[in-house]
Amino acid sequence: MSQVKQFDVEKESVKLLEWLGEFGKDPAGGISRLLYTHEWIEAQRGLENLMKEEGFQVQFDEIGNLFGRLEGSKYKDETILTGSHVDTVMNAGHYDGQLGIIAGIVALKYLKETYGQPLRNIEVVAMAEEEGSRFPYAFWGSKNIVGTAKRSEVEDIADFNGVSFVEAMRAAGFDFRDETKELRKDVKAFIELHAEQGGVLEIEQIPIGIVGHIVGQRRYTIEINGEANHAGTTPMGYRQDAMTAASRMIVAINDIALKHGDPLVATVGKVEVTPNVVNVVPGKVIFTIDCRHTHKDQLVQATEEIESALKQIAEQINVELNIDLWMDADPVPMDERIVNLIKEQCDKNGLKYKLMHSGAGHDSQILADFAPTAMLFVPSHKGISHNPAEFTEPKDLAEGVKALIGALYELGYKEELF
Amino acid sequence: MSQVKQFDVEKESVKLLEWLGEFGKDPAGGISRLLYTHEWIEAQRGLENLMKEEGFQVQFDEIGNLFGRLEGSKYKDETILTGSHVDTVMNAGHYDGQLGIIAGIVALKYLKETYGQPLRNIEVVAMAEEEGSRFPYAFWGSKNIVGTAKRSEVEDIADFNGVSFVEAMRAAGFDFRDETKELRKDVKAFIELHAEQGGVLEIEQIPIGIVGHIVGQRRYTIEINGEANHAGTTPMGYRQDAMTAASRMIVAINDIALKHGDPLVATVGKVEVTPNVVNVVPGKVIFTIDCRHTHKDQLVQATEEIESALKQIAEQINVELNIDLWMDADPVPMDERIVNLIKEQCDKNGLKYKLMHSGAGHDSQILADFAPTAMLFVPSHKGISHNPAEFTEPKDLAEGVKALIGALYELGYKEELF
Repeated sequence: MSQVKQFDVEKESVKLLEWLGEFGKDPAGGISRLLYTHEWIEAQRGLENLMKEEGFQVQFDEIGNLFGRLEGSKYKDETILTGSHVDTVMNAGHYDGQLGIIAGIVALKYLKETYGQPLRNIEVVAMAEEEGSRFPYAFWGSKNIVGTAKRSEVEDIADFNGVSFVEAMRAAGFDFRDETKELRKDVKAFIELHAEQGGVLEIEQIPIGIVGHIVGQRRYTIEINGEANHAGTTPMGYRQDAMTAASRMIVAINDIALKHGDPLVATVGKVEVTPNVVNVVPGKVIFTIDCRHTHKDQLVQATEEIESALKQIAEQINVELNIDLWMDADPVPMDERIVNLIKEQCDKNGLKYKLMHSGAGHDSQILADFAPTAMLFVPSHKGISHNPAEFTEPKDLAEGVKALIGALYELGYKEELF
Repeated sequence: MSQVKQFDVEKESVKLLEWLGEFGKDPAGGISRLLYTHEWIEAQRGLENLMKEEGFQVQFDEIGNLFGRLEGSKYKDETILTGSHVDTVMNAGHYDGQLGIIAGIVALKYLKETYGQPLRNIEVVAMAEEEGSRFPYAFWGSKNIVGTAKRSEVEDIADFNGVSFVEAMRAAGFDFRDETKELRKDVKAFIELHAEQGGVLEIEQIPIGIVGHIVGQRRYTIEINGEANHAGTTPMGYRQDAMTAASRMIVAINDIALKHGDPLVATVGKVEVTPNVVNVVPGKVIFTIDCRHTHKDQLVQATEEIESALKQIAEQINVELNIDLWMDADPVPMDERIVNLIKEQCDKNGLKYKLMHSGAGHDSQILADFAPTAMLFVPSHKGISHNPAEFTEPKDLAEGVKALIGALYELGYKEELF
């Protein structure tokens, strides 16, 4: 591993990221590369050619996930997988998703040039879809790898132009996975490198994050019904003010989150007031709660505290309260063995890292049930994500790719797996 | 006054209210009778005919205020005025504005039939406009009586269909007041009967409110700038959450209002969150404050406390705060002599009343600078206003008209004024 040259890794990664960013470059800013669009097809074909030029064995699966393989010399039914998703949100930045693919390509190229053929297959995957930005369905790529995507779930959905999912998929030259066919059994590990999409690494000036858990999420919609009244003629004591109730609830939610401390986060991101007029006491407020934690028991405990505080406030202010829990996703722990292996590699190679969690969802959470999985983060400037201003310093990015190279080397070139 | 028969007054008032409510009856519900529209013209012409039939001397002023006079036998240059506005909001109820006109007509009719000619002129006015619902200008009727409406203020305004104010006024057959002409000097008192537009009288089961003050109002727009961040990847300690800041501020505003107690009211009616998405920490919140009190010093004191609390919270949470005070209207006291005269009349006639303030704005606040002014309220069912469901019990309404009759009698038929 002493042969890993920062110069090469950094230059190569930045060059390829820029190249891939040209596919779907949006005149309105950033990259718009939605599933099965022309831009998406061009990007996957471009990656296919690049992988072929690098001497990887290349293949698409039925739905459009693209795999490039460095074949193993000894354990041909064991594969170490890396990569991320090729699709983007509208007006995306250059890092979310495509960084994980480029990091995988650079890593495989580097390993091949430096160490020759591995013992196990090492593969990079450009997954078809993760964002859910064109169709109301997310993780289409990874869910097809692990076999949890169902035909029935996408058969009736369409994009904002009314183009059906199935029509778009077939026009792009792909089709449903043959559900009678067995799933892959050769994947022995998956590592995804991704931009942090938060500001922690930058603030703490650490180039690499090793993810221990992907947080679980609970999302709620809270509806408060009071009574709309004239702001001048209704004395304070005669009011059932839904906005005052909501404000006291939001303060309580914030206080509970602060009391629990990291890694708990609770966010009231959306608030809708009715009638929303300067001189009318609000009769109705709807707001959302997004609460996340790396451990289920603590996520449940915090949200139970929140629910109970909300009920108490509603009772005090005499407003009707409706609590709708509409998303309840468990936290996903990363594979400890790979996490430890990455840590050891980083220590050995003098790479500075922080053990952290992922507060956002990733393909890794889908793959974690299917194969031992881990994630690497690199810093996001100011935590900016899903925005053309997304940025990771090239030198930090190179540190992340080096960590990935070290891990893939350990997993692909050593006799012992873990 | 013992001759005032509840039966007649009640029946006559209800009948005429229903009759007037037919002008501008909206198929979508309630009454829509905006300034200088066909419906508005028909209503004023209808009232003109009705007043003529009752034997009143009728005349329009230049801009369309309609006056019906019971001429005095002795003090011909002294007039006691009553009435309210004939225009409505869109989809209005049957009471706001038109009740004050009908009450005046019923009162004049009753006084004439019962006591004959008064010593002073008693007039009922159907003022052209108060609501500001068609054009962005309110109190057009009363401001023309007192001479504060200026040509320049309406010359460049238009309705939602692009029809200019001046064009609409001239099409209705009216024009600007001749500003070189002297204002009326004969108005010695003005009394407006109006629906409360609040729930106090109904809750306290009192049919008549005698208004002591019309509240002053301060209205603010508060802008909070924090930082929009990912709801999952931004630890609580790294946030500048504009919604949490806004919520703490709204709670503080509510606490300050509750601490001050009646008649202070403070309302946050409008809240706009940006970007207003479930999984993004809000970067920006704009909200309004509407604060009212009957006494200026206390209004100023409460709003200063509020401003100071807001600044303190903004500093604690590290968000930018912008406080914009865009309305600062002083309270308007009613004329004590007329208030006392009404009280005495009610006491003498066994009418149950409550001394209270008006939390809403009315023509009376414009007229108060011009002539000794007072207001009478009747209950609004559930405080509902500006809505087809607006309702006052006929028996309560009759009590209000009886109080008005008593006051007009004292002012119009007695040698001594006050």
